[in-house]
Amino acid sequence: MSKQRQLKLGAMVHGVGHGWGEWRHPQAQPNASVNFDFYRQQTQLAEGAKFDFVFIADSLHIHEKSSPHYLNRFEPLTILSALAATTKHIGLVATVTVSYTEPFQVARQFASLDHISGGRAGWNVVTSWLSGTADNFGKAEHPPHAVRYRIAKEHVDVVKGLWDSWEDDAFAYNKQSGEFFTPGKLHALEHKGEFFSVKGPLNIARSQQGQPVIFQAGTSEAGRNFAAENSDAIFVSSETFDEAKAYYKDLKQRASAFGRDAQKLSILPGIRPIVGRDEAEVESRYQQAVELVSIEDAIVALGRPFNDHDFSQYPLDAPFPELGDLGSNSQKGGSDRIKQLAKDEGLTLRQVALRFSRPRRDFVGTPEQVADALQTWFEEGAADGFIINSLLPDGLQYFTELVVPVLQQRGLFRDEYSGNTLRDNLGLEVPANRHAITQIHEKSEAVA
Amino acid sequence: MSKQRQLKLGAMVHGVGHGWGEWRHPQAQPNASVNFDFYRQQTQLAEGAKFDFVFIADSLHIHEKSSPHYLNRFEPLTILSALAATTKHIGLVATVTVSYTEPFQVARQFASLDHISGGRAGWNVVTSWLSGTADNFGKAEHPPHAVRYRIAKEHVDVVKGLWDSWEDDAFAYNKQSGEFFTPGKLHALEHKGEFFSVKGPLNIARSQQGQPVIFQAGTSEAGRNFAAENSDAIFVSSETFDEAKAYYKDLKQRASAFGRDAQKLSILPGIRPIVGRDEAEVESRYQQAVELVSIEDAIVALGRPFNDHDFSQYPLDAPFPELGDLGSNSQKGGSDRIKQLAKDEGLTLRQVALRFSRPRRDFVGTPEQVADALQTWFEEGAADGFIINSLLPDGLQYFTELVVPVLQQRGLFRDEYSGNTLRDNLGLEVPANRHAITQIHEKSEAVA
Ligand SMILES: Cc1cc2nc3c(=O)[nH]c(=O)nc-3n(C[C@H](O)[C@H](O)[C@H](O)COP(=O)(O)O)c2cc1C
Ligand SMILES: Cc1cc2nc3c(=O)[nH]c(=O)nc-3n(C[C@H](O)[C@H](O)[C@H](O)COP(=O)(O)O)c2cc1C
Repeated sequence: MSKQRQLKLGAMVHGVGHGWGEWRHPQAQPNASVNFDFYRQQTQLAEGAKFDFVFIADSLHIHEKSSPHYLNRFEPLTILSALAATTKHIGLVATVTVSYTEPFQVARQFASLDHISGGRAGWNVVTSWLSGTADNFGKAEHPPHAVRYRIAKEHVDVVKGLWDSWEDDAFAYNKQSGEFFTPGKLHALEHKGEFFSVKGPLNIARSQQGQPVIFQAGTSEAGRNFAAENSDAIFVSSETFDEAKAYYKDLKQRASAFGRDAQKLSILPGIRPIVGRDEAEVESRYQQAVELVSIEDAIVALGRPFNDHDFSQYPLDAPFPELGDLGSNSQKGGSDRIKQLAKDEGLTLRQVALRFSRPRRDFVGTPEQVADALQTWFEEGAADGFIINSLLPDGLQYFTELVVPVLQQRGLFRDEYSGNTLRDNLGLEVPANRHAITQIHEKSEAVA
Repeated sequence: MSKQRQLKLGAMVHGVGHGWGEWRHPQAQPNASVNFDFYRQQTQLAEGAKFDFVFIADSLHIHEKSSPHYLNRFEPLTILSALAATTKHIGLVATVTVSYTEPFQVARQFASLDHISGGRAGWNVVTSWLSGTADNFGKAEHPPHAVRYRIAKEHVDVVKGLWDSWEDDAFAYNKQSGEFFTPGKLHALEHKGEFFSVKGPLNIARSQQGQPVIFQAGTSEAGRNFAAENSDAIFVSSETFDEAKAYYKDLKQRASAFGRDAQKLSILPGIRPIVGRDEAEVESRYQQAVELVSIEDAIVALGRPFNDHDFSQYPLDAPFPELGDLGSNSQKGGSDRIKQLAKDEGLTLRQVALRFSRPRRDFVGTPEQVADALQTWFEEGAADGFIINSLLPDGLQYFTELVVPVLQQRGLFRDEYSGNTLRDNLGLEVPANRHAITQIHEKSEAVA
């Protein structure tokens, strides 16, 4: 029985919201970012709707102008471990930086989450774009953009190597003989590289899914190559259908060029849908979302991909300022795109700020309209699925109760989970342990 | 109504067991150290018996001779976060080293666990005693013993400082005015010290218990001073009643000398009780535990405080070998004690190894006998409570079902939780935020 290609859906759960104003909504719980009941309830909504995963964003540096959600929030691995205990099927994707962490610790905590959850862990690999992060970790400087991606490559390689420390059949558990594990099936990594030197082995076995799933969000040249080579799923913020299509094509090509099966790489735009039961509710909810975006907040938000640059120093209604190199050592892809757009369309600062902070119209509508838009992106080469980023406090509830059933009716999304792990959800195989492969290879060589 | 002084009880939960042989017991689940159901069930047993906390030990370096539990186990902060979601009252104490972690990350993950659990987090501060740990973290060398304790002091100070980044009333949540927090109530730490430089502020608020509880296990001179100055509770492994009494007195005196209320510092020997319903079952269970300790395993276990030194190279029945300085850069207190005992009593290697690996008789008996022993230690100045380290797979169940009711009948242990946080359980106050104190102080100075 051939099966229709299925959408993948993730829910971004982030308390009071990604922006500066969402906490001011009358129904918003302003402490939501450290409210475990809120996270549990959101995750159960997503699991009830058979989502593939929940996604927790992150950062490691705040200052007085940071958004409310950044100022006071759960750490991803701890909150996802707690959510592992209250869910059964949904994937749990944590954002963790490579620039300020030790591969041994990252490998270990993800492996532990993977065991706790029965194989539902995913790692969103980021490089940290705020240079102030260095000051929280005793570093003389924030590593430059290109170096961050070199660090990322080595870090991820080490983590994956550590995850394979134990072969899957290493544990003999022979109570009679006293053999707990089979010697030779535990492997030290002995890694000595440019940035890391890690001997291993890791003190935890592989779990049900072999290795946690790798997510990435690369938009610069270096970021795209890194994502195409190393990730199983890509989280991208695409403004328009055309932009999404171009990105999709580009990333699939890059993945193929790295010798990978591009079909197995899921490209998942992050979107901010607004759903209403009818046109009137759609419009009312859209207006609520628009009203939560003040121009002051939009100006602060615009600074984010530019290392939290202060845009309030420029006149609002003059042409978008000339910024030179600014941003290229921060979120390079994102900041380049903003500069380009301002130039191409000759926009003012106010226009640019509002364009990026206000909800776009693409995924605003009745359940059928939103489902249509998702289907178009999905079927016309712009997405393998989506990460849902809700703008209103009950946004995820609206999406799961109203849009998901339409997607299910159209055969675009599952009615039931068919497996137990995040890899099962995403249609990814369990990677064979590298040491087991080597042995099979050596055996067949010996035979030949 | 004056209340009788109450015992404090913690349960050490560690899968297949602390030693090398416990996994071979017929009822042992050999995968218990990565089995979430096992951890959940053990923690629920402890919570059902109104224990103060569960305790997760840890280490970051394994090799082929490491004990089964070390080889493949959960990471403490992730497993305790998961357990936070399945419990309501019991404290959650995680062992985390200062020698291979960043204070920002440690502060953040514990604060996050504290929020998730509603104020039940505790940090067992360790310095790592295995020099091989350095190889997993790209360090040229394992810091020497004295340096580790200097690192520990600075690390803990930074973590505590970060925990106070936000004043308790910092969050205004004023939806009308848009004031999310009150400026001036968020504080950067601006720490620049010998080992760490951390600007802050931390991106998470204080939780119900203000700051997580600090545990420590110091036995060397430096370790004792560190514990007496910085910890709320001390986990100690005392061999005999006299030794425990001497340690208890010494640590309380040191705490007073640091200007602290020594009564507030809980000294909690780790013990390995074996309980049976009657003399016959006691004897049978004791024999089971003894049989799980082979001389080969005891010899490997003996190496542990000596940086996993290989004792199999010495003749078993000759006098305990002359070791010089060995161990003093590892578990100094523990290794010194072993050397001293061997010398004082003129023991052979075999005798020393079995002495430390075999269960002692002190807490072996019927429920009443074990309760008597606990009561004696508690009332005669050797302990404020105990950390229960079960040797048999059903050891915690036996203890909670048989011994705890006797302690409750005697009025030595609670029937019900009276609070919600680990501080509540241990009778510790919520520490005031340092910045709020400064302000009160400044205000009263301004008035004077
Ligand atoms: C949709 C999306 C989500 C992201 N989420 C995070 C995040 O949670 N934490 C983080 O540090 N960076 C995050 N990033 C930033 C990326 O990891 C990356 O640092 C950024 O895109 C800059 O990469 P580039 O320089 O390749 O453009 C995100 C980026 C995108 C596009
Ligand atoms: C009862 C007890 C439990 C301990 N648990 C751990 C542990 O889980 N992880 C760890 O790294 N060290 C642990 N230690 C070691 C101590 O943290 C410390 O490193 C050791 O006692 C050496 O300290 P000293 O040199 O002051 O004697 C423990 C020590 C004792 C006495």
